[in-house]
Amino acid sequence: MPQDHEQFMRFAIEEAAKGGADGNSAVGSVITRDGAVVARGRNLVTATHDPTAHAETVALREAGPALGSDDLAGCTLYTTFEPCPMCCGALMASGIGTLVMGARPEPSESRWRSYAVEGLLALAGWDEKLDVVTGVLVPECLEVRRHWEERNRP
Amino acid sequence: MPQDHEQFMRFAIEEAAKGGADGNSAVGSVITRDGAVVARGRNLVTATHDPTAHAETVALREAGPALGSDDLAGCTLYTTFEPCPMCCGALMASGIGTLVMGARPEPSESRWRSYAVEGLLALAGWDEKLDVVTGVLVPECLEVRRHWEERNRP
Repeated sequence: MPQDHEQFMRFAIEEAAKGGADGNSAVGSVITRDGAVVARGRNLVTATHDPTAHAETVALREAGPALGSDDLAGCTLYTTFEPCPMCCGALMASGIGTLVMGARPEPSESRWRSYAVEGLLALAGWDEKLDVVTGVLVPECLEVRRHWEERNRP
Repeated sequence: MPQDHEQFMRFAIEEAAKGGADGNSAVGSVITRDGAVVARGRNLVTATHDPTAHAETVALREAGPALGSDDLAGCTLYTTFEPCPMCCGALMASGIGTLVMGARPEPSESRWRSYAVEGLLALAGWDEKLDVVTGVLVPECLEVRRHWEERNRP
């Protein structure tokens, strides 16, 4: 695994921790181009009441204006947890080239039955347009989420 | 078809026309609760460079803060064109109860191969959680889009 995947995933984990500290789901994302971070995002659903403010979608929303284009071909999105259907669709809508992800939900804890990123990409004919790299810093991505779950347990 | 579906779809068509006039894709959406409009959205991708600013996602992003909750159960989203994978995922993420749509792309003009809203809902186990009403004011929804396409033809 290239070293920079781990480096950028650590930035995404920092975002996840910030989101969790604000009471949101502890998921974070960063978007890079040519080895530099162009946008960061963390889940803001609880803080803002915006149901679309998942980390990946927040980062994509920032990256376009930051780069002056809604076409993010050539960019890479790092995220600590498998993107949900909305965020996977947002990746497709942005034309981004690469997704690097950390942890995935256990099937029993997924809200989305038999959904997986790869299944939606196949359904949409997008499987050859988005490179998917899995398994980067999985224990660390799970750990930041576990801390948040423990704090938020009733 | 209930009369109010057509009434609210006409508001969505007004949003589509505004979006198209600003150079964006001519798609519009409104969200209602208890017979009143709580949010409107139009495609703003070209105007803002935000690749996630599709009409439905823009409306959902507004509705949560407007209602003070990220849970939009009990609301209905009207949209002039079939929601893409991102917007369909955003509907699921919001917990909205009903989708009312106008036109759908011809399979040959869809960016998303074999994707349809119903297919993604089934993949995610969401088909019983979102009521989908199709075919509302289809000619009018297509017409507003055709005007935009003719203006934007090279």
